[in-house]
Amino acid sequence: MEKGIRKNILVAQSGGPTAAINATVAGVVSVALASEKVDKIYGAKNGIQGVLDETFIDLREKINNIHDLELLSQTPAAALGSCRLKLKDLKKDKTEFEQIVKNLKKYDINCFIYIGGNDSMDTVDKLSQYCAEHQINDLTVVGAPKTVDNDLMGTDHCPGFGSAAKYIGVTFSELERDCNVYKTKAVTIVEVMGRNAGWLTAASSLARLNGMKGPDFIYLCEPAFSIEQFVRDVEGRLAKQDAVLIAISEGIKNEHGQYISEQVQSGAVDAFGHTYIAGSAKVLEDIVRERIGCKVRSIELNLMQRCAGHIASASDVAESRMLGMKACQCALEGQNGVMAAIIRISDSPYTVEYAAVPVSEVSNAEKKVPDDFINSEKNDVTDKMTAYLKPLIQGEIQQEFENGIPKQLVLY
Amino acid sequence: MEKGIRKNILVAQSGGPTAAINATVAGVVSVALASEKVDKIYGAKNGIQGVLDETFIDLREKINNIHDLELLSQTPAAALGSCRLKLKDLKKDKTEFEQIVKNLKKYDINCFIYIGGNDSMDTVDKLSQYCAEHQINDLTVVGAPKTVDNDLMGTDHCPGFGSAAKYIGVTFSELERDCNVYKTKAVTIVEVMGRNAGWLTAASSLARLNGMKGPDFIYLCEPAFSIEQFVRDVEGRLAKQDAVLIAISEGIKNEHGQYISEQVQSGAVDAFGHTYIAGSAKVLEDIVRERIGCKVRSIELNLMQRCAGHIASASDVAESRMLGMKACQCALEGQNGVMAAIIRISDSPYTVEYAAVPVSEVSNAEKKVPDDFINSEKNDVTDKMTAYLKPLIQGEIQQEFENGIPKQLVLY
Repeated sequence: MEKGIRKNILVAQSGGPTAAINATVAGVVSVALASEKVDKIYGAKNGIQGVLDETFIDLREKINNIHDLELLSQTPAAALGSCRLKLKDLKKDKTEFEQIVKNLKKYDINCFIYIGGNDSMDTVDKLSQYCAEHQINDLTVVGAPKTVDNDLMGTDHCPGFGSAAKYIGVTFSELERDCNVYKTKAVTIVEVMGRNAGWLTAASSLARLNGMKGPDFIYLCEPAFSIEQFVRDVEGRLAKQDAVLIAISEGIKNEHGQYISEQVQSGAVDAFGHTYIAGSAKVLEDIVRERIGCKVRSIELNLMQRCAGHIASASDVAESRMLGMKACQCALEGQNGVMAAIIRISDSPYTVEYAAVPVSEVSNAEKKVPDDFINSEKNDVTDKMTAYLKPLIQGEIQQEFENGIPKQLVLY
Repeated sequence: MEKGIRKNILVAQSGGPTAAINATVAGVVSVALASEKVDKIYGAKNGIQGVLDETFIDLREKINNIHDLELLSQTPAAALGSCRLKLKDLKKDKTEFEQIVKNLKKYDINCFIYIGGNDSMDTVDKLSQYCAEHQINDLTVVGAPKTVDNDLMGTDHCPGFGSAAKYIGVTFSELERDCNVYKTKAVTIVEVMGRNAGWLTAASSLARLNGMKGPDFIYLCEPAFSIEQFVRDVEGRLAKQDAVLIAISEGIKNEHGQYISEQVQSGAVDAFGHTYIAGSAKVLEDIVRERIGCKVRSIELNLMQRCAGHIASASDVAESRMLGMKACQCALEGQNGVMAAIIRISDSPYTVEYAAVPVSEVSNAEKKVPDDFINSEKNDVTDKMTAYLKPLIQGEIQQEFENGIPKQLVLY
């Protein structure tokens, strides 16, 4: 085959890391390696920033064999690096777009696959529009979804979410055991990621799948959070049992949409006289201590919930890889401005299809938890949520360990 | 065999839960099940409190087959419950001892195996002394070690520590990936359990075993912590690289032995006007923000580090079970007042022996990290530490999952 008709592809990652985002890169690379249409396979370091800076990596050099692809799929976070750069409004300032296209042309890149969340899909949307408007027909821009928050429209769920959900479900099952060993009234409040969407917090309910009690209460960030109801809930449960385990979203807000942490902490200052911004769990810990007076502890699952590759969901990793494959296929077929997506056909048996959806329908929107996934008291989830979540955490990856520590593939 | 010469045994757990303490119960029960000398196998709920309260469980009823023993070994925390009760001084007040012996006699218990840390070994020591002094020859009291802190004397290391160390090493390897994705100067400070002994914090170094960089700095609680040196260390590293990852013990103290958190936080108050006690990592986060001014985040590994059964060390679980077996054997042989212990013969190949040591040499002492396990700058560990730690995290347990969540055995 002549060089002229072979395509060069570029893949990049953006937004917060997850345990499964590298599987999407592995999916892109595997389709590219298998295709006779593909010549160069580039990765850009640090997302669209790397495209602007021309920091490209030759992935054929870095990924030498099928074992490397497996290791890459098992390595958490973003092996190509990430960025938080949102491109300027196309109508107001074309400078960045001109530079991006110039750099892509310089390397004869025909396909650009961008893996990420809302902001990244905004980049795909704008850049694909720019190409269409300027008749740049030899460049196809395609998105692949990724976010632990699971808040992307257009896809049933997002790569990275299932693994984070599994980490959260497993961790709550372990915390339940830990919190129940003493005969002491004690409250444990666990803060889960999610400023505007409560999907990850809802995953705490998965600790119940094998007949355990799981969290006593689950407060998502979608309904208004009432401190008075919270105190009543906790007091009521403490009257019946010793240990109370609670899951809350970091973004719980009062009926005025104000974050609980901002509302309560307004007067607090740290040792330097700065306003002290605590997490929601810490704020509720103080409230329990003040209003109820029992032993209380707050826990933040922090970065661990998004990077715990060792407890990744096998389903999530496999689907993430499939979406990378789908995105690469779409790019090779010239489907400009689409995002690879998962369409759920049924919960049980769990069946999905992979589709290409217009990225314009995805970018700059947020998928929140629907009302009927939350109970009427707004302190737990419903069976509909469980049916939705359960398939996403199935299967354990057989991670490769060396010296008792997971092996990882590092690209730069 | 006549009933008269068969023995009834009792096992109980105490102190903070770990991922491996139930394996020790499984070890005790397996030797008891295999012995023709044993009739009843009791567990006391909530440690020595349950002996005082006569809350006994018949473990032959609860553990029906070999599969239950395996599940019990894989279940984190204390399946028999725990307590934090320290018995009164034997010379001052014998009431509790009289009650304990009365209750044990009521159930014809001849062997009492108590699994726990310093305080629990103090209970074993006092109770075995009481039996010896009062010629109670048909009751043998034996200890089995357990503590994530690894601070017990008399044993090379403690069950529970290896699994927590593995969790910490794995988590730091994942956090390293997560923290390195952005091209931004950023400091991540991770607080690890340990008020007086830095063993768990040292385990962060295990993230380096497969050639990764691991934490940039490791500050244990044994040497005096200097905020000035800390700021210099971090500034120096930020001049060379973007992301700086730091492990600190919760118990880091200044040269006067004062906890860093107490020292710095003295003026801080929360929204209720209470003195705000933050963790050490949070305090250092504020210092980095104030003195260096870059992006900074603090993380507490919190309860997850001691209850993460899903990433338990296979070596740790196996050794924990062996120590339960050893303790039960010692009890059946009438070795009153000993603790089952691990004697390390060599690091590589890793070879150990199981021994019985006088519990009086163990109770109320603390094994701290020796000077030559810490570097001269007091901001990292030495190769001696790595050689000590490495064997303890080897092997991954093949945990049984159902519905994507680990199966657990619950005894009550």
